Amino acid sequence: MRLGLIGFGNVGKDFARLLVGSNSIHCVVAIIASRGGVMGNGVGNCMDRDEIMNYVNKGIYNGTGGINIDDLISANIDVAVVSIPPNYGSGEPNLGIYRKLLSNGISIITADKTGLALDFSGLLKLANDNDAQIRYRATVMAGTPAIDLVRGLRGRSVRDIKAVLNATTNFVLTKIEGGSSSRDAIDLAVKEKLAEPDPRIDLDGWDAGAKLVILANELGFKSTLRDVKLTGFNVNEDDVRSH
Amino acid sequence: MRLGLIGFGNVGKDFARLLVGSNSIHCVVAIIASRGGVMGNGVGNCMDRDEIMNYVNKGIYNGTGGINIDDLISANIDVAVVSIPPNYGSGEPNLGIYRKLLSNGISIITADKTGLALDFSGLLKLANDNDAQIRYRATVMAGTPAIDLVRGLRGRSVRDIKAVLNATTNFVLTKIEGGSSSRDAIDLAVKEKLAEPDPRIDLDGWDAGAKLVILANELGFKSTLRDVKLTGFNVNEDDVRSH
Repeated sequence: MRLGLIGFGNVGKDFARLLVGSNSIHCVVAIIASRGGVMGNGVGNCMDRDEIMNYVNKGIYNGTGGINIDDLISANIDVAVVSIPPNYGSGEPNLGIYRKLLSNGISIITADKTGLALDFSGLLKLANDNDAQIRYRATVMAGTPAIDLVRGLRGRSVRDIKAVLNATTNFVLTKIEGGSSSRDAIDLAVKEKLAEPDPRIDLDGWDAGAKLVILANELGFKSTLRDVKLTGFNVNEDDVRSH
Repeated sequence: MRLGLIGFGNVGKDFARLLVGSNSIHCVVAIIASRGGVMGNGVGNCMDRDEIMNYVNKGIYNGTGGINIDDLISANIDVAVVSIPPNYGSGEPNLGIYRKLLSNGISIITADKTGLALDFSGLLKLANDNDAQIRYRATVMAGTPAIDLVRGLRGRSVRDIKAVLNATTNFVLTKIEGGSSSRDAIDLAVKEKLAEPDPRIDLDGWDAGAKLVILANELGFKSTLRDVKLTGFNVNEDDVRSH
């Protein structure tokens, strides 16, 4: 299959490395991120191992201009692998990217929750209408099969879900418990790239809320992030330690 | 879809009740069990609610002879719903039934583990070769999404699985812990239809072994029940209580 990578941060680069390392039969023909992108061999050919690793090591911004999402679609890709930062405010450019890809019959594998958190039903319908698929098991608890588990409960009455869905919050609470200040713990989470560059996405509940919405929709409960009451991270350090 | 029910004990009857109660769009055209069976309206028509409930309440053996698996296949069913007792010794008649159904392009939903425990790869290949499907989520831990969970781990390195897979053993140990004798606990398990009519299937490890084989195959570890070392249920009652 012809793949296009959208987003080329830690996750996108790790994916590219895995693909190179696994001698995948799939080929990467384009990589784009927020400030432009590249086509295989400049024209949308399959990238070879060296070309991919060059982009992984030196980045995709080489000063020769770049490509955008329309170019990527023109490159005739089968699947877009999406790992762009979330934007739970306006939802853009994420939502627009998903809709454009699916409308063009391009299937999506995404680690970004924005689209599904804001328009789960709409994107699934769009995929279905265009004979495309959208896969998103990486959006909730990464490698842990949380979505598989919930999917297996479809059709049953699930009354509530109790879950630690946000790793940053969990990490920060653990550090505070161990004697750290909130501030130091949060800084460390950002530094170790556990938290989003803007940690408020984690600490104000956006990330956990988006995950909950995806799980709820999996269970047939149509909802969006706008239906979720978020409670931010605001703890008394002494309370955490004496708990 | 046109359904044929194979096996009409507790599970088969409960399934028929659910189907009637849910106003399913699917229709039952035949029901068979070990000693014969019936066709809808005698000829393989869709059974109506009253006809199904009559069989649920009065059984399918009415002294007018009966049908066999070949008749069921001739009735042009799309899916066979199988809930027959296991036979982990010879594997028959279970294995033969599965193979005949799949060879005729009939898809299977089964609660019986025999076929998969003894020939998982073979049955899946046969299904694939004949454009049929075999679904078996009820075989391991019934309504608990155990198979979904394990399926979500495919492709990763699973080193071991620790699980309480057999409800009877769990029940019996709990009763012993509460002061019951092994004998009484086992009798109660059979009486409450938790255990198989022959409780050795549960207590000698056949049931748990068969489930483990299904989980292992889900993870890509090709194996059959013949590869599993079974350890039977043989406990000192005092040990259980002092544990």
